[in-house]
Amino acid sequence: MPIDPEAQLEITALDWVPDFARGHVRDLRPRWACEEAGLAYRQRLISVRDKPAWYYAEQPWGEVPYLRDGDVGVFESGAILLHLGERDARLLPRAGQARADAIAWTFAALNSVEPLVTEFVRVDLFARDEEWSRLRRPSLLEALGARFDRLAAALAGREWLAVDFSIADIAMATVLRDGQDTRLVEARPVLADYLARATARPAFARALADQLAAFMDTQPQGEPA
Amino acid sequence: MPIDPEAQLEITALDWVPDFARGHVRDLRPRWACEEAGLAYRQRLISVRDKPAWYYAEQPWGEVPYLRDGDVGVFESGAILLHLGERDARLLPRAGQARADAIAWTFAALNSVEPLVTEFVRVDLFARDEEWSRLRRPSLLEALGARFDRLAAALAGREWLAVDFSIADIAMATVLRDGQDTRLVEARPVLADYLARATARPAFARALADQLAAFMDTQPQGEPA
Repeated sequence: MPIDPEAQLEITALDWVPDFARGHVRDLRPRWACEEAGLAYRQRLISVRDKPAWYYAEQPWGEVPYLRDGDVGVFESGAILLHLGERDARLLPRAGQARADAIAWTFAALNSVEPLVTEFVRVDLFARDEEWSRLRRPSLLEALGARFDRLAAALAGREWLAVDFSIADIAMATVLRDGQDTRLVEARPVLADYLARATARPAFARALADQLAAFMDTQPQGEPA
Repeated sequence: MPIDPEAQLEITALDWVPDFARGHVRDLRPRWACEEAGLAYRQRLISVRDKPAWYYAEQPWGEVPYLRDGDVGVFESGAILLHLGERDARLLPRAGQARADAIAWTFAALNSVEPLVTEFVRVDLFARDEEWSRLRRPSLLEALGARFDRLAAALAGREWLAVDFSIADIAMATVLRDGQDTRLVEARPVLADYLARATARPAFARALADQLAAFMDTQPQGEPA
């Protein structure tokens, strides 16, 4: 089992989040990568409310995940995926077009797809009762739909983004999964099948279970940060 | 001079964009990196209106830049910066915390800062006459301001994001420069000084001049794509 208190790799995650966020916090990405490659890691859990001041020196936004690998600390889930990818060629090919594609699609997931998904999830779910959200929805729906159409075209006939499964699929599948409630993924069979294929991997299921197991049942008491 | 028709590196850019976009198209990032490292590159210019179908096979969104390096093609400006960074340690340190920081801050610029900047520029400029934009502005201003405050705290007392100048600064400075008209950068001296320091580099000025020189004066005729 990857979780090992003696491991050199340490993933920082949260000790509690509200129900709707459980299974969607971004430490899922490095957990999944570690599971795919059999990399042992220990957990460090911090509070979403009482983030210690020193944590911002490690992670400038005060967010999770944060990875420690011996003397080196890494923030941003994309950078952490790339760091873990260097540990195992099953996560990130060593050279050539396959490597370039895995890195390009990792950036694509985080810079060309996730921003629109995040904005649409805000409009469609978190801010759905606000007037601006109702008015903004049509143009955003069009932009995200067009982007998903291009992604579906790129994925047509392919199992994974970069020949074999890679960190790019961890990034893209977690992005699509966060946008699942928008019904834009299920409306496109290529994307729905791809997401189902990715989340059917045993490593994904173990990573998800481990994130969920780390949460306390009730929010710890304390002053809001 | 880096632009050389015989160079192995090829950067794809646009042959025309409207005035407001000139100097802000993302091929500025790899041009800047090439100028910093003295890497020769040739240009391939495509039309923003008549994008050839084969281009989508190279760049799934039909956007620029796209980099060709011999047999390998790379899309997404972040992935291209990383690829060019591997060519020269002045762009990307070879190991240790300095390398991890340069990669983490590159992802931070593109995944944790640029999405909010892009959204705010849309609200404040492109869609400023729309009702949703007026209603959305206050909450978005608060979110982007908070993010900029964190960035300013991380940059305080530092010249560059990762010890020395690196691809992370090319990514972050171009993001901040795109958000300059929002006046949120100039309201924070640490960020304004950082941006001024980055754009005062001779390599930036050359990259900007070369992007501007590539545009035709008037939009080529043709059916809209």
